[in-house]
Amino acid sequence: MSDTTGLPMAVPAEGLPPRVRIHEVGPRDGLQNEKGAVPTEVKAEFIRRLAGAGLTTVEATSFVHPKWVPQLADAEQLFPQVRDLAGVHLPVLVPNERGLDRALALGARRVAVFASATESFAKANLNRTVDEALAMFAPVVARAKATGTGADQVHVRGYLSMCFGDPWEGPVPIPQVVRVCRALLDLGCDELSLGDTIGVATPGHVRALLTALNDQGVPTDRVGVHFHDTYGQALANTLAALQHGVTTVDASAGGLGGCPYAKSATGNLATEDLVWMLHGLGIETGVDLGRLTATSAWMADRLGRPSPSRTVRALSHQEP
Amino acid sequence: MSDTTGLPMAVPAEGLPPRVRIHEVGPRDGLQNEKGAVPTEVKAEFIRRLAGAGLTTVEATSFVHPKWVPQLADAEQLFPQVRDLAGVHLPVLVPNERGLDRALALGARRVAVFASATESFAKANLNRTVDEALAMFAPVVARAKATGTGADQVHVRGYLSMCFGDPWEGPVPIPQVVRVCRALLDLGCDELSLGDTIGVATPGHVRALLTALNDQGVPTDRVGVHFHDTYGQALANTLAALQHGVTTVDASAGGLGGCPYAKSATGNLATEDLVWMLHGLGIETGVDLGRLTATSAWMADRLGRPSPSRTVRALSHQEP
Repeated sequence: MSDTTGLPMAVPAEGLPPRVRIHEVGPRDGLQNEKGAVPTEVKAEFIRRLAGAGLTTVEATSFVHPKWVPQLADAEQLFPQVRDLAGVHLPVLVPNERGLDRALALGARRVAVFASATESFAKANLNRTVDEALAMFAPVVARAKATGTGADQVHVRGYLSMCFGDPWEGPVPIPQVVRVCRALLDLGCDELSLGDTIGVATPGHVRALLTALNDQGVPTDRVGVHFHDTYGQALANTLAALQHGVTTVDASAGGLGGCPYAKSATGNLATEDLVWMLHGLGIETGVDLGRLTATSAWMADRLGRPSPSRTVRALSHQEP
Repeated sequence: MSDTTGLPMAVPAEGLPPRVRIHEVGPRDGLQNEKGAVPTEVKAEFIRRLAGAGLTTVEATSFVHPKWVPQLADAEQLFPQVRDLAGVHLPVLVPNERGLDRALALGARRVAVFASATESFAKANLNRTVDEALAMFAPVVARAKATGTGADQVHVRGYLSMCFGDPWEGPVPIPQVVRVCRALLDLGCDELSLGDTIGVATPGHVRALLTALNDQGVPTDRVGVHFHDTYGQALANTLAALQHGVTTVDASAGGLGGCPYAKSATGNLATEDLVWMLHGLGIETGVDLGRLTATSAWMADRLGRPSPSRTVRALSHQEP
């Protein structure tokens, strides 16, 4: 049997963007959920391999207090090992001004804050109300944007969790999500990432939120999508977002990760499954799927369990 | 934490059908791949529970020679146990006239033949060329259609495997697929099921095939789709098919099954993941997702391993 199934056949569809930027979150969003400690050297090698596979945005780590995310307590040691990788953006999470200081001192040029669309998750994740969290981020974003000029100006991403459903509150009203999105942009965020933290969204809901954002003056080119595969919906939702014009899609190599504070939040969209669809649609990503799959298989070996990505399993012949 | 995440929020999208008929293949396509023997009583109970969950088409078994599919060697014992279920169609596979005779003798009113779009798979699965297989099916379809009249006339489905890619031949040219589809309809098949047996399809390819079929006079309402999740693409492909107007979608409860003769063919689309998307889109299915999930969790217990369906895992809190 020849290995002719290793790459999808490219058959473009109408109305889709010619190119998509994948925002790879595996080293941060994936590894922050690992129970065992992953050695700093392994993390650095993971990031180098992801960059070598053609990913141009690789979220590297988080400058939250180690008490909250001990898995990423080595941010200070890790970041200098990868910050000089050519041609790769390495955003890092910063929860507050202290985190921003640490990140900037190490030379980070892309940072991300993380807000919640719901009060319940803001309380659980940040121990603040939604508006208190926004107030905390205001000086972070302002100071980040005041750092550097021109192409060297620090870029700020605003994550928004629970954009579709919330485990305590149920379905999240679209106007509530739009309000926080607007607030994050008004603070100065360059782009948003709409998170379906518990994976409940479906394609019509995705289109409805994107349309509502447009109606309130948020252009699609400032919006990324971040889907979880908890109910198997992530790739269908991504297709709906692409059909709306979204060109930034978050994914996690090998499908690593989830959210440690939301029990039912399992399974980031696997970057390989995303790349399979995008390349099948003739959409450029710059990613070498074979190298990416090999990287995730390598990481799965380091973690001692098979990748949850179906594409990684199929291409590397791992049994589920 | 309240259980508000048990059902998707319905947000319809434009251009989709109001109702989809799910062709449930778990008892046949799922169980024919089980290594251990599943007791006939368990199969019958599985079918009853699927019908009780609201599925109106449940493919029950196969009348192939027991030498080829020993897992379904109990078709003669199983079918009479379920054939009187009210309001449920129970199609069965028939490979040849002998199989048709056995099925009709037991009162089957829906049968299915299974062709291949590629010579390699026709040889592997049927030990015939594509055209030899069609010639074998000709009297099967003709005799089936000559059985019964009006609403009681036997309904014939034509499965077509390897409609997108083939493990030996690679990408399958669309005209080659269209030719066999036309031939199956010309034999008298009432509907087709387009199988992505190795799971390589992507949404543009799906649309291109459906469009080519329309161009050759095959109306969309005679076409069902049968996607595998080998590369995680099944639900995105389903969305593309729905957007084209397809209203018959094959799926397997709990994601059971695959294809025993194609090594890389793992994972039928899970019915629960499909229902989550359809209900999220406001599309009627008649299915009670809670009862369906409970059925798949029950079957997973019988089989001694967790369901591959992400929705089943999430809703029944099974660890992957």
